[in-house]
Amino acid sequence: MSKLTGACVFGQSGGPTSVINASFYGAVKAALESDSITRVFGAAHGIQGILNDELYDMGKEDPRELRRLLNTPSSALGSCRKKLADPEKDDGDYRRILEIFKKYDIRYFFYNGGNDSMDTCEKVSRYMAAVGWECRVMGIPKTIDNDLFGTDHCPGFGSAAKYIATSCMEIALDAKVYDYPTATVVEIMGRHAGWLAGSAALATHYGAGPDLIYLPEQVFDLSAFLDRCQEVLAEKGSLFVAVSEGIQDKDGAFISEYASKSGTDAFGHTQLGGLAVYLADEIKKRTGIKVRGIELSLLQRCGAHLASRTDIDEAMMAGMTAVNTAVAGETGKMVAFDCSRRDGTYACRTKLVPLAEVANYEKKVPAEWILPEGAGVSREFIQYVLPLIQGDCEREVKDGLPRFAKLKKIRAEV
Amino acid sequence: MSKLTGACVFGQSGGPTSVINASFYGAVKAALESDSITRVFGAAHGIQGILNDELYDMGKEDPRELRRLLNTPSSALGSCRKKLADPEKDDGDYRRILEIFKKYDIRYFFYNGGNDSMDTCEKVSRYMAAVGWECRVMGIPKTIDNDLFGTDHCPGFGSAAKYIATSCMEIALDAKVYDYPTATVVEIMGRHAGWLAGSAALATHYGAGPDLIYLPEQVFDLSAFLDRCQEVLAEKGSLFVAVSEGIQDKDGAFISEYASKSGTDAFGHTQLGGLAVYLADEIKKRTGIKVRGIELSLLQRCGAHLASRTDIDEAMMAGMTAVNTAVAGETGKMVAFDCSRRDGTYACRTKLVPLAEVANYEKKVPAEWILPEGAGVSREFIQYVLPLIQGDCEREVKDGLPRFAKLKKIRAEV
Repeated sequence: MSKLTGACVFGQSGGPTSVINASFYGAVKAALESDSITRVFGAAHGIQGILNDELYDMGKEDPRELRRLLNTPSSALGSCRKKLADPEKDDGDYRRILEIFKKYDIRYFFYNGGNDSMDTCEKVSRYMAAVGWECRVMGIPKTIDNDLFGTDHCPGFGSAAKYIATSCMEIALDAKVYDYPTATVVEIMGRHAGWLAGSAALATHYGAGPDLIYLPEQVFDLSAFLDRCQEVLAEKGSLFVAVSEGIQDKDGAFISEYASKSGTDAFGHTQLGGLAVYLADEIKKRTGIKVRGIELSLLQRCGAHLASRTDIDEAMMAGMTAVNTAVAGETGKMVAFDCSRRDGTYACRTKLVPLAEVANYEKKVPAEWILPEGAGVSREFIQYVLPLIQGDCEREVKDGLPRFAKLKKIRAEV
Repeated sequence: MSKLTGACVFGQSGGPTSVINASFYGAVKAALESDSITRVFGAAHGIQGILNDELYDMGKEDPRELRRLLNTPSSALGSCRKKLADPEKDDGDYRRILEIFKKYDIRYFFYNGGNDSMDTCEKVSRYMAAVGWECRVMGIPKTIDNDLFGTDHCPGFGSAAKYIATSCMEIALDAKVYDYPTATVVEIMGRHAGWLAGSAALATHYGAGPDLIYLPEQVFDLSAFLDRCQEVLAEKGSLFVAVSEGIQDKDGAFISEYASKSGTDAFGHTQLGGLAVYLADEIKKRTGIKVRGIELSLLQRCGAHLASRTDIDEAMMAGMTAVNTAVAGETGKMVAFDCSRRDGTYACRTKLVPLAEVANYEKKVPAEWILPEGAGVSREFIQYVLPLIQGDCEREVKDGLPRFAKLKKIRAEV
């Protein structure tokens, strides 16, 4: 491949995670060290920052502050949920992106996100090829939901799983402390895939955790659920349930919609919430016992103080790999993980998969890993997740509180 | 004082905390090492376990497992919310307690809890004196709410404050990540005192945190609140609010009652919850922007992975002091903390306060430490809390998850 010299732009998109900034750090570090990349820009709010000509000059940041991105949650550059049109149908946004790329001589575009972001990546890549602007486009995976195709797992998932499993172990001790029956329902993110809800089983497996776990891959029947709750209460005297926000009935309706009026976001996704309280109330109606609904909400995706070392290291590696392979000539690919877990030994290396194969597909938990009637997940699931939650992060603490990265965010000039 | 030889019983009561087991460990360790104490019992579910003759023999536990109590959240013995009658009006429960005390020759009673538990302690102490059963009774403070009289602060508060401040720093980064206006409302525990809600200001003080903070000590006016929200949104583009679960209107009605049907617990306390979602909805009605309500719920009191080292050490010290001072002749007292913060140097030592002076009073945040119109708390408040959140706990981890204490709980025999 010929050497391609020019500027690069990096953007973050979709819901943030505890480690998306570690990928950002990996990409920026590799780009700043590359001979082919002349300038390194960060886009404010992902693709929207490119459309708005709002780019930050990463070369002007303090390297020590950049390194703090390894332990700083959320998307330091800001995120967006903008969906681009098909370039063949409406190329307005693409013409503007090309204009900005030309203005700054941007020859490398790195985009860090989930399914929708890989779709954006793929469309930008396709458009630039069609109009003949030589530009290498690489996707960097990110999603706590772990639902991206073509990769063993996604950066962000391991830290969220560790947060969920740890919090469920703690809640299990607290929720069953009284001498009267109680029911606690915890609601866990994961719209269409049960990787996160299933991770609550780690708590049960390693000490104390939910008695019942419901993933969105299986049909949820409210009446059967309440029957199981009563059985567990009769047996154990108290009850702890973990449910995915995305559980649906046999007609595909979200259980959370039973109780709440819901809107839809820019991608047509239903906005979920309030499920834990709803199910807790249903248990109360059936049994009369004291109940509590807990939604882990944003905490499970921004709890960087519990981030997994493995996840941080791999997220950084994904960012570096995107830059280094693009410089070496790759384009139109997403960085993915290829892992082996032979003999209990875990090894993770990167590979590249075509963006077109990844975008808009959702990887669900295999049916054979999900146990029936709220019994959680199989040993294979546990063995899959366990390596991803290993190791603690190096927390920088000041006055007992986290010291997160503070970027200067100096606007790029031509 | 004469030497008093006999068995002791230790009980845990009220809502658990991240460090109540550290007090348990301190008390059991001191008791097992004491020449005056013949046997060490733990009561299952506090005073209820004494009434039920359900005592565990602490001498039969593995000392290494007992030491793990230092980092194990919730009440390892189980808790209760039982309220005892006045012994002068109805001595039924007290006669039963005396029977059990005589059965096991219990001469020391240690009770670990909040306001209501100190009330229980005081009544038991009074009854035993009236009937002439020589028995030394000591209260050990515990409450994340930090509302006990007679002590600088309460074990459990520092860890909850650290959890709240850390989580609010993380949420602040996540909640403001998009390129459109959003409002996030976080609901924090603290029924009548704003110590916990005020601790959210540490996040704002040390990086990023709530824009507005509301404590229960001030009258909450919904209309004025929404006006302030709009002002902040106009200024900053997004909004992050922290509220105490206990905020009330000018007539003393809980704001949470505006939206929810509520019951009352055994002490006549109103059951609170759902406030964050309610206020978020009100902001949405007023502004039309995207909102999110987050209730920190049990996580703030059981998040032992974020426990403060200072809190753990002090909780253990409180337990040891209760035992050692009782053996030395004290009774009818609660262990309290006397602290100095001169020249930024923090020192904490124990003192004893009569139970009758503590029971049933609630220590609120001083009015002069609370800023008006949601502006949070003063520098004095910050300086008060800061020493209490210092230091990380020694987390024992197995396979990436906490390894909590697992007691054998062998039933006591006579």
